[in-house]
Amino acid sequence: MNKIKKTEIMKSVYGRNDEAAADFNKFLTGKKIFCVNVLGSPGAGKTTLLIDLIGRLIRRSFVIEGDVASDIDARRLAGQNIPAAQINTGGACHLNAAAVADCFHNSAGGFIGGYLFIENIGNLICPVDFFLGEHAKMLVCSVTEGGDKSYKYPLAFERADVIVINKSDLSAHVDFDEKFFSDGARMLNQTAPIFTVSGVTGAGVSEVAEWLTYRAAPVTG
Amino acid sequence: MNKIKKTEIMKSVYGRNDEAAADFNKFLTGKKIFCVNVLGSPGAGKTTLLIDLIGRLIRRSFVIEGDVASDIDARRLAGQNIPAAQINTGGACHLNAAAVADCFHNSAGGFIGGYLFIENIGNLICPVDFFLGEHAKMLVCSVTEGGDKSYKYPLAFERADVIVINKSDLSAHVDFDEKFFSDGARMLNQTAPIFTVSGVTGAGVSEVAEWLTYRAAPVTG
Repeated sequence: MNKIKKTEIMKSVYGRNDEAAADFNKFLTGKKIFCVNVLGSPGAGKTTLLIDLIGRLIRRSFVIEGDVASDIDARRLAGQNIPAAQINTGGACHLNAAAVADCFHNSAGGFIGGYLFIENIGNLICPVDFFLGEHAKMLVCSVTEGGDKSYKYPLAFERADVIVINKSDLSAHVDFDEKFFSDGARMLNQTAPIFTVSGVTGAGVSEVAEWLTYRAAPVTG
Repeated sequence: MNKIKKTEIMKSVYGRNDEAAADFNKFLTGKKIFCVNVLGSPGAGKTTLLIDLIGRLIRRSFVIEGDVASDIDARRLAGQNIPAAQINTGGACHLNAAAVADCFHNSAGGFIGGYLFIENIGNLICPVDFFLGEHAKMLVCSVTEGGDKSYKYPLAFERADVIVINKSDLSAHVDFDEKFFSDGARMLNQTAPIFTVSGVTGAGVSEVAEWLTYRAAPVTG
């Protein structure tokens, strides 16, 4: 495979995905649904955070769970009475817009006004390149992952609309340098707010809910 | 892009990588160097574990650090007097055999007899498909990531030669179901030993060192 061929193919892959994502974004906006693409490492606590966050939002939510395998997360959400659907990618390292749109149309028919959260595959690299039709990207990190993530995975930080540092309940037990983390994030992204929260205790999550409500208002009405 | 074209290209990508990996494996074996491909999520504690582990091995080690960006990990190892080199992939989500072999030849000339650890990009999906010439794959998980990782990222568990559950020092503070984790791992992999350790306190790491010494003996002599 020569480089030109690879570049052409990647352009085609991204191009088609971007088209599907733009269509889905337009559809969701028409339905007054604000869509959040949730990115983070495996085990960053994305699902636990979503459960707490959704409980604080006035408008209702639907969640699409992306995983290589298993429906553990969708079942966890259902157990909390949060409507959810699961996409299994089989082996793929990211979700794509067509699969997400299909999943939504098949499982959330009639849903109008509110939030669609897409919990992407646990991966700080590959999902960043694939627009899913979201209005905002939420990057979830955790204090247990260490303070160097912004330096090692810059694109995820560059593209984030909001950065959440999760698992603050464990801060006392780990050596997390929040200033180093935030300095790295700020070099890459001057506008995304950074919230420190615990999805387990709920600390700080109301501020994320407030930010989201404010940010979503032009769409949700 | 149609499916046939994609399949052909992927075959070509894997095929070329496998060739380079087989060559590098042969080279390393000839030099009595046992090579370990270290896989895990971002923030699983791979570098901290390696520092502790390498300190317990009788034969010397060289480390190749893979990251999308930054040389934080290579500098950490150098600070511990562990010879190391850094590969930055720019944006790629996994290392490949040619880059690893080049890096080794350029930075570890004359190294004979011992261990080469390759700390792959923090990612539980993409690196699993790329053989780097290693004699063994070490999968590093952590109690803070939760017990469901084997269900969500099955291929990494299937392919592992040894599975390490890291950050046992935090077990008391998180809800980690070790039986659920190990049951999932065992469904996928009946032979890899599972060690529970703390790279921070050193608990359990000597057992990993013993396993590795035993496993490497046919190569290191």
